Amino acid sequence: MSNTLNQLAEVLEARKNAAPDSSYVASLYHKGLNKILEKVGEESVETIIAAKDAAASGDCSDLIHETADLWFHSMVMLAALGQHPQAVLDELERRFGLSGHVEKAARSASN
Amino acid sequence: MSNTLNQLAEVLEARKNAAPDSSYVASLYHKGLNKILEKVGEESVETIIAAKDAAASGDCSDLIHETADLWFHSMVMLAALGQHPQAVLDELERRFGLSGHVEKAARSASN
Amino acid sequence: MSNTLNQLAEVLEARKNAAPDSSYVASLYHKGLNKILEKVGEESVETIIAAKDAAASGDCSDLIHETADLWFHSMVMLAALGQHPQAVLDELERRFGLSGHVEKAARSASN
Amino acid sequence: MSNTLNQLAEVLEARKNAAPDSSYVASLYHKGLNKILEKVGEESVETIIAAKDAAASGDCSDLIHETADLWFHSMVMLAALGQHPQAVLDELERRFGLSGHVEKAARSASN
Repeated sequence: MSNTLNQLAEVLEARKNAAPDSSYVASLYHKGLNKILEKVGEESVETIIAAKDAAASGDCSDLIHETADLWFHSMVMLAALGQHPQAVLDELERRFGLSGHVEKAARSASN
Repeated sequence: MSNTLNQLAEVLEARKNAAPDSSYVASLYHKGLNKILEKVGEESVETIIAAKDAAASGDCSDLIHETADLWFHSMVMLAALGQHPQAVLDELERRFGLSGHVEKAARSASN
Repeated sequence: MSNTLNQLAEVLEARKNAAPDSSYVASLYHKGLNKILEKVGEESVETIIAAKDAAASGDCSDLIHETADLWFHSMVMLAALGQHPQAVLDELERRFGLSGHVEKAARSASN
Repeated sequence: MSNTLNQLAEVLEARKNAAPDSSYVASLYHKGLNKILEKVGEESVETIIAAKDAAASGDCSDLIHETADLWFHSMVMLAALGQHPQAVLDELERRFGLSGHVEKAARSASN
C-alpha cells in the first residue's frame, strides 16, 4: 500500500510482536489501552492549545507537530483494537462523496 | 491530488468562501476557531469513550465513526488556520522514515 | 451539611428520582453515563480555551463560568456512580494535610 | 476560611512565591499556563477513563483519585490566573439557588 497512513499502519502492526522495550510504540501496546487513550486525550489538548497559540502568533509549526502526535496516537489506538485506518478513510470518503478510486488504484499498482 | 485526506482538504478549502448556512463546515468556519476547537475536544472524548466500549463489546463500528469525526474536525481546524493535512503527513513520514514517493508520484500523475 | 458542594450533592441526589424531562440534571441521568462523561470532556476543553482567552484578555468571567460547568458535570458523574463529592474533598485534605475539622464541625452543627 | 477548597486555595497562593523546585505546585507555576492546562486536560481524560472502569468494576477508588487530580489542577489554573475557587462556588450557588449563608457564617467565625 502506498499512502502515508497505510504505511504507518504497517509499521504499527509490525511492532505489536516486538519486545516492550524495543520502541515507544511497543511500550505503549504493553502498557495497555488505558495508557494509549490517555495519550490520545493528552495530544488532543496539546493540539487545541497549539491552535490557540498559532492563531495568536501566526506560527503553526507546533500545531503541525501536535496534530501529527494526535493522529499518530489515534492510529496506535486503532491498531491496539485490531482496526485499520483505511476503515476511517473509507468512512470519510463515504460521507463526503470522495472517490477513493485513484488512491486505491495507486495502492494496487504498488502492491 | 489523489488520496482521501488531500481530497477532503480540497472540499474544506472550497467551503471557506461559502455562505455560513450552506453546509455544516461553512457554519463551523463562521462560528470561529473556538467552536472548531471545542468540536476537536468533544470528538476526542467521544473517541476515547467509544474505544472503551469497543474493548468491552468487540464492536468497533462506533469507534470508526468517532475517529472519523476526530480526524475530520482536526482537518477543519487546520484549514481554518491556513494549514494543509499534507504538512501533518509529511511530519509522520519524516518521523517514521516512510517513503512518500509512491504516493507523491501518484498525486503528480493525477494532477 | 453546610458547604456549597455538599448542598449541590443533595440537589443532584434528589433529582435522581425525578422524571427525565423535569430538569437538565434528570435528563442527563436518563441519557446515561456516556453522555455525562462527554459533558465532562466538553467542559474541560471549554475551560482550557477560556483560560487561554483569559490570559490574553485579562477577563476571567468566562473562565469562572466554564470551571463551574466542569465541576458541576464532574459532580453529576460522581452522583451517577453513587459517589459523594466529600470523598474527593477528603482525598484533597489528606494529600495537603488540610484540617477538615472546622468544616466538619460546622456541618455537624447545621445538621 | 474553613472549607477544603478555600484552605487549598491558600496553600496554592502561598506556593506562588516559592522556588520552582520546592514543590510540585511551584514547578507547575514555573512551567507556565500551557503546562497547567495540559494537566487539566490529562486529568479530565483520566477521570473519564476511570469512570468507565468504575462503571464496569464497581470499584470507584481510582475515580475519586482522578477527580481529586482534576479539581486540584483546575484550582492551580485558577490561581495562576489570579482567580479564587470561591468565585466558582458562588456561581454554582447562584445557579442552583443554594444558600451559602451557613458556610459563609462558618468562615467568618473561623477568621
